[in-house]
Parts: sequence; structure tokens; C-alpha cells
Amino acid sequence: MNWADLDSRTCSLARTLEIIGQPWTLLVLRDLFNGIGRFDDLANHLGIARNVLADRLTRLTGSGLAERVPYRDGGRRTRHEYRLTGTGLDLCTVMVAFAGWGDRHLAGRAGPPAVFEHRDCGGSVQAGLLCDRGHLLTASDRVVSRPGPGSEKGQRPARAVRRPAR
Amino acid sequence: MNWADLDSRTCSLARTLEIIGQPWTLLVLRDLFNGIGRFDDLANHLGIARNVLADRLTRLTGSGLAERVPYRDGGRRTRHEYRLTGTGLDLCTVMVAFAGWGDRHLAGRAGPPAVFEHRDCGGSVQAGLLCDRGHLLTASDRVVSRPGPGSEKGQRPARAVRRPAR
Repeated sequence: MNWADLDSRTCSLARTLEIIGQPWTLLVLRDLFNGIGRFDDLANHLGIARNVLADRLTRLTGSGLAERVPYRDGGRRTRHEYRLTGTGLDLCTVMVAFAGWGDRHLAGRAGPPAVFEHRDCGGSVQAGLLCDRGHLLTASDRVVSRPGPGSEKGQRPARAVRRPAR
Repeated sequence: MNWADLDSRTCSLARTLEIIGQPWTLLVLRDLFNGIGRFDDLANHLGIARNVLADRLTRLTGSGLAERVPYRDGGRRTRHEYRLTGTGLDLCTVMVAFAGWGDRHLAGRAGPPAVFEHRDCGGSVQAGLLCDRGHLLTASDRVVSRPGPGSEKGQRPARAVRRPAR
């Protein structure tokens, strides 16, 4: 089986990007992870157009990654802030993996702009690859991808085939 | 220290997205991981406009994630295919983390479209979060992010401040 023969869209990466692959979405998720949950705070911190931010938050709540939670400051009227759901928090591995790559290849002398801690024990957290035979993979280990049960054959445009002479 | 006070762009996630955050780039990287390296094969498999694919490959080679390698089929003229460099292969954790999230939340009954194996031992590979005190984090564990040595204070637009009456 050749990867080129399988449908490019029947893929968990492609499906995930359909939900969080728009520009800004991963940065909005990062800020939600970091506890910035109010619309104005998000807009100010990200420097993002308010209509774009509104669109991204609508998509994130619509796909179940975030939810709107009411709050009141003092006697003022009820407003809403955004929080990640369990499904959204499950993207933590993706976020930490992204940040780890950036730390290794782009951080320079200043060092990592952020560090991650295991809340329960305070240990420093990194994303890694583990195999079910107990190996923690290193940079020299190679990962091979194979079609899984949910793969589908691609429906590529038929190519012009020159018929053999009879 | 509040995350909202720190510069949004001084961030390893934001820096990584500058390089691989354009539409299609992660899918091009996925195909390169899967050994699809020739321009025509990438264009056919992805169903991507050829000028967009050419732009993405130029960016990936320019930023050191991929390289052009010459090949010849039979007696035909030399052509080039694309392969990931070590820096590009180091994105494997990001790709597997993305796919894992999609498998958990979007794959449905058919199951994962792809599975990952540790090449050396054949074990099934997943991305996970590990802390340096030896814990493999589970869905109920929480990760806290803290400003690191490379963080920078944000330069947000100054707000109108009402001066106190003298």
C-alpha cells in the first residue's frame, strides 16, 4: 500500500486542521490555555481583529473545544468568558509539542519563552513519543506511519492511459 | 506575572507557526513524512494548486525543514524530489500529537486512518506528555505554563489613563 494511493483527507491530521487550522486559532487556544479568557483581553493580547477573534471563538465553541462561561464583575451586568473544555484541554500535547520544537530550533540564546509544569508535582513537562513496548523515542529514532483501519483509497482524477496496440 | 502582560509573539508556538502555519504546509509535511517526495506526486495526492505547493516547498527548504535531492529515472534527465531534514523530522512529535487528537475525537467507528510504529522495534507509537520527575501525564493531569527565560514584556498600545485630580 502506497500513501499516495490513499485519500489525503481521510486523515486525523487533516481532520484536526479543519477545526483548528485557521490562522490565529492555535494562538487563541494558547491564550485560553494560559487563562486569558475574556474577549477584550484576548483581542488586546493577540492584536487580532475583533471580527476574526469572534469567528475563531465561535468555531471553537461550536466544535466543543471551548465554552462560554458567565461572570460578573462587582455589580455590573453579566458577561461571558471563554474556557477550554476537556476536548480542548486534550490539545495540550499538540501545544507543548509545537512549543518544544520552537524552543529547540528558534529560541536562540534567550532560551524558552515559556516552560511547562506538571501541576501535581511541579516537574518540567515536555512532549515526547512513546512506543507501547516502553521506549521513549529520541531524535535518532524513526517513526513509520502505516495505513490504519480507517484509511480510505483515494479518488484521484483518472489519468489518460495509452491503450496497448491490439 | 500575567500572560496577558507578555508579548504574544515572543512564543515558541507563534514562532513555529510563522514557519509551518500557512494553509497546506502541515499536510505537505505529512506527505513528506510518508515518503511522497516528488512534486507531481505531492500535487496529485494533496489536490493542491501547483503554485501554492511550489511556494510551500520553497519555504520549507528555505527554512531548513526539507531539502531537494536529485534523482534520475532510467535514462531521463535529472529531476529533484523533496526530503525532510533532521530539523523537519523533529516535527514528528507535532504530527503524531495532531493525529492522536484527531484519532480520539474525530475518527469515529472506522478507527484511525493511520497508525505509527517505532521503526526499530515495531511498537505502536503515540505522542504524550512527560514530566522530568518520571510521570507520564494522563487526561486528568493538568499542565501549567510559566514565563521562561526568553519571555518578553508586551508592548501593548497604551490605554487612555485618566489622571488623578491634583
